[in-house]
Amino acid sequence: MNVTIIGIGLIGGSLAIDMRRRGIAEHIFGVDNNPDNAIQAKALGLVDEIVDLQTGVEKADVVVLSVPVDAAVYLAPKVLDMIDSQVVFDTTSVKLPLIKTIASHPKRKNFVAVHPMAGTEYSGPQAAQAGLFDNKTLIICDAEFSDKKSIAVVEDVFGKFNMRIIQMDAYSHDVHAAYVSHISHISSFALALSVLYKEKDEKNIFDMAGGGFASTVRLAKSAASMWVPIFLQNKQNVLEVLDTYINFLYDFKLAIFNDDRQRLEILIKRANKVRDILETSMEQNSMHKEKIKIS
Amino acid sequence: MNVTIIGIGLIGGSLAIDMRRRGIAEHIFGVDNNPDNAIQAKALGLVDEIVDLQTGVEKADVVVLSVPVDAAVYLAPKVLDMIDSQVVFDTTSVKLPLIKTIASHPKRKNFVAVHPMAGTEYSGPQAAQAGLFDNKTLIICDAEFSDKKSIAVVEDVFGKFNMRIIQMDAYSHDVHAAYVSHISHISSFALALSVLYKEKDEKNIFDMAGGGFASTVRLAKSAASMWVPIFLQNKQNVLEVLDTYINFLYDFKLAIFNDDRQRLEILIKRANKVRDILETSMEQNSMHKEKIKIS
Repeated sequence: MNVTIIGIGLIGGSLAIDMRRRGIAEHIFGVDNNPDNAIQAKALGLVDEIVDLQTGVEKADVVVLSVPVDAAVYLAPKVLDMIDSQVVFDTTSVKLPLIKTIASHPKRKNFVAVHPMAGTEYSGPQAAQAGLFDNKTLIICDAEFSDKKSIAVVEDVFGKFNMRIIQMDAYSHDVHAAYVSHISHISSFALALSVLYKEKDEKNIFDMAGGGFASTVRLAKSAASMWVPIFLQNKQNVLEVLDTYINFLYDFKLAIFNDDRQRLEILIKRANKVRDILETSMEQNSMHKEKIKIS
Repeated sequence: MNVTIIGIGLIGGSLAIDMRRRGIAEHIFGVDNNPDNAIQAKALGLVDEIVDLQTGVEKADVVVLSVPVDAAVYLAPKVLDMIDSQVVFDTTSVKLPLIKTIASHPKRKNFVAVHPMAGTEYSGPQAAQAGLFDNKTLIICDAEFSDKKSIAVVEDVFGKFNMRIIQMDAYSHDVHAAYVSHISHISSFALALSVLYKEKDEKNIFDMAGGGFASTVRLAKSAASMWVPIFLQNKQNVLEVLDTYINFLYDFKLAIFNDDRQRLEILIKRANKVRDILETSMEQNSMHKEKIKIS
């Protein structure tokens, strides 16, 4: 089938690679309002042809909206205005505002709101990579508003990437995404800012940046163009989790200030429980992999 | 030579492995006040013999103090009381309180305060691993208070691990360690606590914990027995960096609350600069590796 990818960055480009190599897409059209990205995406062979939005939507069987979330809110109704029977899905990290925008659109049933829980801290077409989605989780939001054919197309595409597909309502998705993903990025940005603020000559960071620092600030490399819209579109949830987070930091501050060894131990041992969860999550993924191998 | 390792956990155990396989230690004595650790360390072959503190110090040429930092402050003067001409070094993350404690000890010159910038989030003898220190940075603090022979022994041991050895005064070390290492751990603990607080049924974390979350909370698995003493021994610096960090989080909170896209962009783009620093740090390490290969 023909696929049009609107926004050929890390996610759109990685989708293009895997849709092609897994025989899902015969011809891939690329649409990007950034001419540099468009040229690179073509040069890298991610897409076969760069076209304008109208042409892209018209020529496609499936349209993918892999743009920052504010652009997705703006573009989704426009794309739905242009389609006939095409299936459209987005790949953004915040779902409720987007879904509200198209709630009463006559083509709403052709749209599927999906969030592949995969990515890296890099962006742009040159960050695209094969296998980015393999064995990760895909969340389909508010599936009851999409028709069966559209859901089937999405399940087929992401099923071929061996993704574990789950369904969730958009409101819950946005709350959980704030806690499990969005706050990690703010935490990491603020950490980078603190170190850069203090270590003006940078030499000490070079010398002392061990593995721990590198892993906690990894996400601080992430692009503003993607994350500013996420924080603003998911404003209420992000503000809530920021408050929770800052409160726990005050807990640590007070306990350290008071030399309260016992309180610090309680806090750290409670935090340690995340180990079991991460390990269960990894096991779940490897069980999923195992299942795929067997079937 | 004979080496005695006091505290055979992640760091002490990894030192034992590499001192043996690189021909530095002929016989390794282990001292541990936790009987389970002692038994495990012997069973894993990390040490040849478990002995008491007095015997360990007497029979050794080199004594390593790889215990939590509060235990090091307590044990360092006792060990120095017992030595004749042995060299003693510690491996802890906070230096000033320890160095102050032994400042006027008659055997002060036999002691070298070192901080190998290496570790994992795991602890105990079973966490010990070969090559943990390879190509990492070693900081020697206040080297002018140690005699040449002791410094030479330390440089020889860690030089054989291909570590990049730098010197720093203890006060600066503790400030930088707070910014580059200690705050990362608090940030990670608080992140884990926030998620665990919200996600009471844990299923959503299993489903949504992508790579970003896993990398920022990795350090939240770290042991209270190690980190409570670090935060308390480095109290003033840790409180200072916590304030800086919380202030940047408020910057984010205010900007999100006010839909201040421009401010968010400035913050994120400034944080992105950490990318260059991490990459320079990695380059520096690989240049160091290259140098070793050539020499």
